[in-house]
Parts: sequence; structure tokens; C-alpha cells
Amino acid sequence: MTTRALPQPDRKEIRVETVLQALGEPVRLQIVRALADAPEGIACGDIELPVTASTRAHHLRTLREAGVLSTHTEGTRRISTLRREDLETLYPGLLTGVLAAQR
Amino acid sequence: MTTRALPQPDRKEIRVETVLQALGEPVRLQIVRALADAPEGIACGDIELPVTASTRAHHLRTLREAGVLSTHTEGTRRISTLRREDLETLYPGLLTGVLAAQR
Repeated sequence: MTTRALPQPDRKEIRVETVLQALGEPVRLQIVRALADAPEGIACGDIELPVTASTRAHHLRTLREAGVLSTHTEGTRRISTLRREDLETLYPGLLTGVLAAQR
Repeated sequence: MTTRALPQPDRKEIRVETVLQALGEPVRLQIVRALADAPEGIACGDIELPVTASTRAHHLRTLREAGVLSTHTEGTRRISTLRREDLETLYPGLLTGVLAAQR
């Protein structure tokens, strides 16, 4: 099966303002929480979200372009993973703090 | 001298999305960095910022209403402090991670 990584910023290109903006939206935060519970990655369609497919795709793209998650295709599926190591290296504690928030 | 606290959310009213949105703006992040270096508080006008007074006031208000900082008046001055303890209790690590970001 062919896998292909979708474009994303290198670690050194990630900007904290962009990450914070990406995280500061309820649906995107829900996506990040789901990914945090699935270190092996999760198919985009498998995250339960109260939004249309196009809104879901938009949010996933915003998170990917901010540097929060990576997405690759496996055949027709898109699998996303959290860029935990990159974020922890750049902003130690940030993601842990965000995930500690009560829902 | 009369001091008066400006309105702000109680700790339990603070929402992580609102905090992230408040932090995800370059000038507001600059304010937060300045406050992090001044635990005793800082007069709003004393923070060097590349914006007009009204924009500055708007950003300070956004941060206060999000729960990121407290402001009180001392006579005609407005002194702001970071709500470090509240943020650290709610989202342990978040502020440290944000402040670790390269400028």
C-alpha cells in the first residue's frame, strides 16, 4: 500500500502563536484530545465530532499546517498523529497543560 | 490611595479555549512575557509595545477577561499581574511551555 505524508511545517518553522490559535477552538481541541489517546494514529473519519465532513477536514488542515499533527495517507485513508515530540521540545509542558483542562 | 480590582473571571470560570485564543496573538504574548518577568506587577503603560494606546488597552482587556491577568487601579495607574497560580493549577505546564517559545 502506498503511503504519503501530507505537507506540514518543519519543527523549526512552527510558531507558538499559530499553535495556540490552532488549539484555541473547541472542535480542534476535541481532535487533539482524541489523538492524544491514540499514539498509533487515528483515521480522520473515526474521530466523533459534531461537525460536517468539510468542517472536520478544515480543522484537521489547520492543525496540520500549524504543526500540531501529522497526516499521512494509507490507500484511501488519512491517518493523523499528534506531533507530541516536536511540541514538547519546542514548548515543554504546553500540550500537557492543555490536555489537563476540564472538558 | 484607593485601589480597585477590575472585573475578571473566577478561576472556575476560566476556559482553556479562551486562554489559548488570548495567548495566540503576538502583542498579547509580548504582554504576557513582560508580566512573567515582573511578578510584582507592571503598569500597563510601562510595557513597550508597537501599538497605539487603544490597541494596548484592548489587548490587556482581552487577557484580563480570559483570566490570564489581573488588573487593579492605584490612583490613576493600572497595574497588571499574571494569574500564574490560577493558570498553573488549571493547566499545569501551559504557561511555562508558552514562555519557553523562541521569540
